Amino acid sequence: MLRRSNNTFTKLVRFKSDYLNPTIKQQLGSPAKVGSIIEARGFVKSIRTSKKVGFVDISDGSIHKNLNIVLQGSEQPKFKVGQSIIVKGEWCQGKGTQPFELKYNPKNPDHKITILGDVTEDYPLQKKSTSMPFLRTFPELKHRTNTLASFLRLRSHMEFKLMEFFQQQDFIKVTPPLITSSDCEGAGEVFSVHSASDKPNEKFFGKNAYLTVSTQLHLECLALALNRAWTLTPCFRAEQSNTTRHLSEFWMLEAEISHVDSVHQVTNFIEDMVRYVTQSLMDSSSESSVNNISAGDGNDYLNGSYIDKELVKERWAKMLTPDRWPRMTYTDAVSLLNKTLPENEQLQWGDSLQLKHERMLAENSPIFITDYPSAQKPFYMIKSANFDPEKPTVACFDLLVPEFGELAGGSLREHDYEVLKKNLEDHQMDMQDMDWYLNLRRQGTVPHGGFGLGFERMITFLAGYDNVRDVSAFPRAPDLCNC
Amino acid sequence: MLRRSNNTFTKLVRFKSDYLNPTIKQQLGSPAKVGSIIEARGFVKSIRTSKKVGFVDISDGSIHKNLNIVLQGSEQPKFKVGQSIIVKGEWCQGKGTQPFELKYNPKNPDHKITILGDVTEDYPLQKKSTSMPFLRTFPELKHRTNTLASFLRLRSHMEFKLMEFFQQQDFIKVTPPLITSSDCEGAGEVFSVHSASDKPNEKFFGKNAYLTVSTQLHLECLALALNRAWTLTPCFRAEQSNTTRHLSEFWMLEAEISHVDSVHQVTNFIEDMVRYVTQSLMDSSSESSVNNISAGDGNDYLNGSYIDKELVKERWAKMLTPDRWPRMTYTDAVSLLNKTLPENEQLQWGDSLQLKHERMLAENSPIFITDYPSAQKPFYMIKSANFDPEKPTVACFDLLVPEFGELAGGSLREHDYEVLKKNLEDHQMDMQDMDWYLNLRRQGTVPHGGFGLGFERMITFLAGYDNVRDVSAFPRAPDLCNC
Repeated sequence: MLRRSNNTFTKLVRFKSDYLNPTIKQQLGSPAKVGSIIEARGFVKSIRTSKKVGFVDISDGSIHKNLNIVLQGSEQPKFKVGQSIIVKGEWCQGKGTQPFELKYNPKNPDHKITILGDVTEDYPLQKKSTSMPFLRTFPELKHRTNTLASFLRLRSHMEFKLMEFFQQQDFIKVTPPLITSSDCEGAGEVFSVHSASDKPNEKFFGKNAYLTVSTQLHLECLALALNRAWTLTPCFRAEQSNTTRHLSEFWMLEAEISHVDSVHQVTNFIEDMVRYVTQSLMDSSSESSVNNISAGDGNDYLNGSYIDKELVKERWAKMLTPDRWPRMTYTDAVSLLNKTLPENEQLQWGDSLQLKHERMLAENSPIFITDYPSAQKPFYMIKSANFDPEKPTVACFDLLVPEFGELAGGSLREHDYEVLKKNLEDHQMDMQDMDWYLNLRRQGTVPHGGFGLGFERMITFLAGYDNVRDVSAFPRAPDLCNC
Repeated sequence: MLRRSNNTFTKLVRFKSDYLNPTIKQQLGSPAKVGSIIEARGFVKSIRTSKKVGFVDISDGSIHKNLNIVLQGSEQPKFKVGQSIIVKGEWCQGKGTQPFELKYNPKNPDHKITILGDVTEDYPLQKKSTSMPFLRTFPELKHRTNTLASFLRLRSHMEFKLMEFFQQQDFIKVTPPLITSSDCEGAGEVFSVHSASDKPNEKFFGKNAYLTVSTQLHLECLALALNRAWTLTPCFRAEQSNTTRHLSEFWMLEAEISHVDSVHQVTNFIEDMVRYVTQSLMDSSSESSVNNISAGDGNDYLNGSYIDKELVKERWAKMLTPDRWPRMTYTDAVSLLNKTLPENEQLQWGDSLQLKHERMLAENSPIFITDYPSAQKPFYMIKSANFDPEKPTVACFDLLVPEFGELAGGSLREHDYEVLKKNLEDHQMDMQDMDWYLNLRRQGTVPHGGFGLGFERMITFLAGYDNVRDVSAFPRAPDLCNC
């Protein structure tokens, strides 16, 4: 029946040559022939007028740079900051710092201005009098500012570089589930998931379901099938934390690696990874290099940029030390800290390291602190290679970075069935829920290890910024879910 | 205080040269010198023994190929399928179809076999007597089979190629929120999100929160800041659908593009994108090319592979037609279908196209059906360019592919403030909840359009397979959340 109707399909509307209109990044990167008539599209970012000439800078967010429009003659059209416009004019060599500019002459019949979208009188993103707390009240418009668009471009670039790195390292990118019936850490405060049709005895999934706090357990399962697996995926924590370092919804980079016996196989890998991404930013041809994080050419209409370029450079330089970053055990770190801490702040072995301790340890470069006390860590970590029953520790690490503290954490995972079973019992975990995880150790177990890294923290750190909530496009936190 | 303690940091444990052990993919791809002693790690996939020689194939999932181990002499060690092992032996030229093999001689003191992980007697992944329904009962082990590992490798490859494509096309990859207070479609059944500490009047987010059914609305916001934005992100639907085409948790590829005036700017883009990924699979050097989707060399221990290579080739060929895929309006599609449909199945203008109609239209190649009746579509779509008040339609499209039906859908988005406001009112949407979205049209609005594509559907289709639940590593569906 179907094949017989083939002829009728020849009457179909076929492809027309409609392509996407170019971005400003493309227009600046592959410039048209000087003297040709082109159309440029963007938002009005700033306006300077005089009697005989006007200057309007437009941006479309595809790149940190603005395109400069020169309005010729005295009969200049009026613009407002924030309007979206199309300017048809002559592509010219630039006179200022920009290599090119677009000239609009109202008397030339080939030139044209189109206002696509006007703004109201109270349009909030004016050149002056904006602040980050003020911007946060406009979640739908704030990304049109240079700083916040820069964070988004930086994130995109970093994700691409991470993808490239893991691809080169022979990892398979996977997507563990976000809705889960297992609680990874056995501790974290979790969100539960319900369908509107749920009744007490009729649950959508047939059991309690939660949003994952870490995909690690499922990722281990996949790494034990694929040798090396990684993911960059949302995770959720229902903690009542109103800090600049926590989000209720965040993206976590997690990797699990089979056939790993030493925690330093993992620390070496993660160091290589972070250096790879940071080095790509240092590369001057990179779209997200230090000069490109923010326009920083005076046109940034965030009345004073939120990005401190000197701090950015300093942070990047600290990541790219000629030597490998230092490694130090928790036990040594406590001894070292006690040498500088005042009498009344001395640490006892077993105490948790606080943010201020982490900052002390990571003052001059990132540092890996390894082999924390078992009591501080989850059930799935394997005991340290040089295990001391008097001071029991596990083969784990935290990666601490300057100013920020913890950026990533990882460990070797317990791969012995009997030991893991006992750990689960000791931690009073639900054995039935964890049977699938335990089973990975009963059937062809493999020594393995991995890590998790908070992606917004990494972006915030490398952007020279201090608050993860502004590098998340739509941050979620207690009482914050505004659209 | 901190700088003074610098000297003590020189005593730190420094980097040791611990690297990751190589994967089998690396060992086959960058082979060692013939005659050298190497270690290989993997799971025992099959065993063939005779009196004088034995053959054991091992796989680590990094590639579809097995590494062949040749056991020399009569005193051969015993293995079981599923064990994870390390074989230390001599790297040799292969005698069979494989270019290399690893020889183990029990009498050579440099050779060694290590059983890392044994299996129980009831290890389920035996060479024979497995079926997909049986495998699904072992969510933690099933990915060690060739077919399911192939799906994961294919997915990873496709994601990398998509990233490459969008990067080339100047898109910024973004991460819209998954927890949202807005309901995108104004229709879908949604999951709600609660914290354990929630009380009726004390909600974690201060209001009702849901898991997103589509990130489109937030993505529009970001595209209106960055010109072109895309995401590959989990989405959730609380539908009671137990089909081979639906998941409660799935990954959606969504893109939004500014300065788009014609729906065919979007269809052209998506066609280029799907062709780019498919072409990369056809490339014989690709790791996920047709020959590599499954081992298919007789060693696939899924007693009868689940992958029909002829079907794979056929599907890929249909995607890569020399001409552009056809485009047809809904109205024309109804007329055309009515020419072949029997009297009692004739469609009226306004009827929804069913899966069987979609399959008829897409029999020979993918096809875009455009300009569906407004009444079938959500509030945010703009009316068709050739709008007929008698038969009101919107500027939208569905991409239908052979056998599968809908793979993607998209539209131009209404960018006029007054029209969108009226649409929202007509659809009885909560105006306060949608104020942020409406505001995008009040402040510098831009004509734009975009699409969403179900990633698991695309993988399933290109894998020559028929059930999205098996290409999702841990599928979620009604009553299915088993770990």
